[in-house]
Amino acid sequence: MTKSRVEAFSDGVVAILITIMVLELKVPHGADLESLRPLLPTFVTYVMSYIYLGIYWNNHHHLLHITNRITGAMLWPNLYLLFWLSLVPFVTSWMGDNPFTPMPTAVYGFVLLMAGIAYTILQTVIIQHDGAHPRLKAAVGSDWKGKISMLLYIVAIAIAFVRPIVADAIYLGVALIWLVPDRRLESHLTESRGDSHPG
Amino acid sequence: MTKSRVEAFSDGVVAILITIMVLELKVPHGADLESLRPLLPTFVTYVMSYIYLGIYWNNHHHLLHITNRITGAMLWPNLYLLFWLSLVPFVTSWMGDNPFTPMPTAVYGFVLLMAGIAYTILQTVIIQHDGAHPRLKAAVGSDWKGKISMLLYIVAIAIAFVRPIVADAIYLGVALIWLVPDRRLESHLTESRGDSHPG
Amino acid sequence: MTKSRVEAFSDGVVAILITIMVLELKVPHGADLESLRPLLPTFVTYVMSYIYLGIYWNNHHHLLHITNRITGAMLWPNLYLLFWLSLVPFVTSWMGDNPFTPMPTAVYGFVLLMAGIAYTILQTVIIQHDGAHPRLKAAVGSDWKGKISMLLYIVAIAIAFVRPIVADAIYLGVALIWLVPDRRLESHLTESRGDSHPG
Amino acid sequence: MTKSRVEAFSDGVVAILITIMVLELKVPHGADLESLRPLLPTFVTYVMSYIYLGIYWNNHHHLLHITNRITGAMLWPNLYLLFWLSLVPFVTSWMGDNPFTPMPTAVYGFVLLMAGIAYTILQTVIIQHDGAHPRLKAAVGSDWKGKISMLLYIVAIAIAFVRPIVADAIYLGVALIWLVPDRRLESHLTESRGDSHPG
Repeated sequence: MTKSRVEAFSDGVVAILITIMVLELKVPHGADLESLRPLLPTFVTYVMSYIYLGIYWNNHHHLLHITNRITGAMLWPNLYLLFWLSLVPFVTSWMGDNPFTPMPTAVYGFVLLMAGIAYTILQTVIIQHDGAHPRLKAAVGSDWKGKISMLLYIVAIAIAFVRPIVADAIYLGVALIWLVPDRRLESHLTESRGDSHPG
Repeated sequence: MTKSRVEAFSDGVVAILITIMVLELKVPHGADLESLRPLLPTFVTYVMSYIYLGIYWNNHHHLLHITNRITGAMLWPNLYLLFWLSLVPFVTSWMGDNPFTPMPTAVYGFVLLMAGIAYTILQTVIIQHDGAHPRLKAAVGSDWKGKISMLLYIVAIAIAFVRPIVADAIYLGVALIWLVPDRRLESHLTESRGDSHPG
Repeated sequence: MTKSRVEAFSDGVVAILITIMVLELKVPHGADLESLRPLLPTFVTYVMSYIYLGIYWNNHHHLLHITNRITGAMLWPNLYLLFWLSLVPFVTSWMGDNPFTPMPTAVYGFVLLMAGIAYTILQTVIIQHDGAHPRLKAAVGSDWKGKISMLLYIVAIAIAFVRPIVADAIYLGVALIWLVPDRRLESHLTESRGDSHPG
Repeated sequence: MTKSRVEAFSDGVVAILITIMVLELKVPHGADLESLRPLLPTFVTYVMSYIYLGIYWNNHHHLLHITNRITGAMLWPNLYLLFWLSLVPFVTSWMGDNPFTPMPTAVYGFVLLMAGIAYTILQTVIIQHDGAHPRLKAAVGSDWKGKISMLLYIVAIAIAFVRPIVADAIYLGVALIWLVPDRRLESHLTESRGDSHPG
């Protein structure tokens, strides 16, 4: 039961974050296509943030799926992750309003980095408390995607002060790394569940 | 479990979209009936978008109900559908603020069209991954409603540049096609579930 | 499953409605108690609408609890109820901004009336489709509360044009009628569930 | 089922409250770090309120986890708690806009106090209706944390009129008291559930 409530609460928060970002797409006064143009940078940033939140939702989903037991010790790391995700709409708006400027681009990366760290903490706490759960350990493995993402965020934050557009490209690249399905985890999930039961 | 989380997340997003649209009904300053009049086009557009989101929620509900198993491969098509639905409040506001103007009317249709395509993709991926699931295939059938809807959206988008009001009528017509309950799907659902179990 | 998704979706919509109403409590510029005073009518209206949405949530909860089976035919009546509830934040703001004025007070009552009618429709459809379900029929009984509420709303709407404050008092009175727990329904729920199982 | 719906609804409301608070972080016009500075007090207040809502979510979660049965009599105390929590975003904004001023600081404490009282009422009603449930009684125990928190809120409200910053420190201190995990309750939860079942 604890597990399903943590999932439901996290789903709720991410679902709200993903939708309130749209509220930042301020409806233009004009009725022609031209009046949509100033929204373009915000829209593109919205799409990227949507993908990032989607990635977090998917990964969170897989992580908890493979976890046997949620204990009280996992609740705060989970809330800590949601805290950093909750700042995504804010930095999305700021970067969308000021495309290709150093500080908003760097702060966007900073929030992604902190969310990445928070996710790693949650993952570590779950592995610790879920005991010697070999399936989860195997599925997470060396977590090279997580490590390389955080390295790339740090690089992007530094580059943001020189060439913000390159930082943007890195953020997009990291998103693409994650969009490619993680075959290993998928296969573990399939094995562990069998295929006789919906799930 | 995966299935119930996908449902819960999708329900959350649609529930939020359907309610944040109301935030666009800006409370008038006056206290007489006259001051409500400028809200009328926005209100009417709101009602139509509410019906559309209701239709998507119902169809999504039926589609997942009949699905045995949600795999990782279905998560992104589902998020892709939710992405286009997330733009409905924006285009609703824009069209509500500029009733019977070509571009907002066309863009409204474009978002409906993209949502329709996304739904078709999701449906196709589910049928593929759910194996040779005869019940689902039979229920979806030739999907004539889906095909005719998308054709009508395209027609409406083109007409929007000449007679926006005709495009609006087409959008309303498509909604009505879906409002009429799909007897075939319903009956499949009933058969498959029996009637001994709440469902 | 259908039942739990309808519940989850309805819960989501009502939870969002109940919380976005708070967004209408615009944070004052001043930092003294005096600057809160203009918010008082909006706050009082917020409290009343909160109670009304709470009542609908409770009743909806009881109604679905006692229902065996949700069919497709119940989905649109449910969405129709949620539609009228979705207008509550709007009329709450309008009445809060214009306390004791005829039209906003009457429109507030109109939305309550329409929500009441929508609830009655949902209840009727459920009784019809749930077959000869004696427990539900007995629990709903003559539905005197529902009937008297709608009568009082109509009276209040008419009075709103003469003495808005009397209409407000009637709205409050109806809320109080519902706040008093419905012993009969409660007892049916308890009987039907036994007390061995959490629920 | 009643229990899971009460949980789902409460989760929904808290998830929305925790995320709409971010909407108060108004995106600055400038693109430099300097333009973020005016947001700092609001951000710090946001973090504190986030922690408070997280604490309430965790405690609510534990309380309902240990409860066997939710009855109709618990629904309104639960809605009463959610009502006070729903005012947290409002007082967070007001205090964030007016840092270290007496009245907003005192009103912030007042809402915390009322939420604390509401939680105590809910807890009492649950213990009463859940019969002689020794596990819950033992877990709640003397509830010294609850009692000391409410005492500290009252002290802080009084101090707010003289030295608001001291009141802020007290609010932070109370949050820290709760952040330290409640070993006793945790251990009761673990015992009662065993460790064979996920949850």
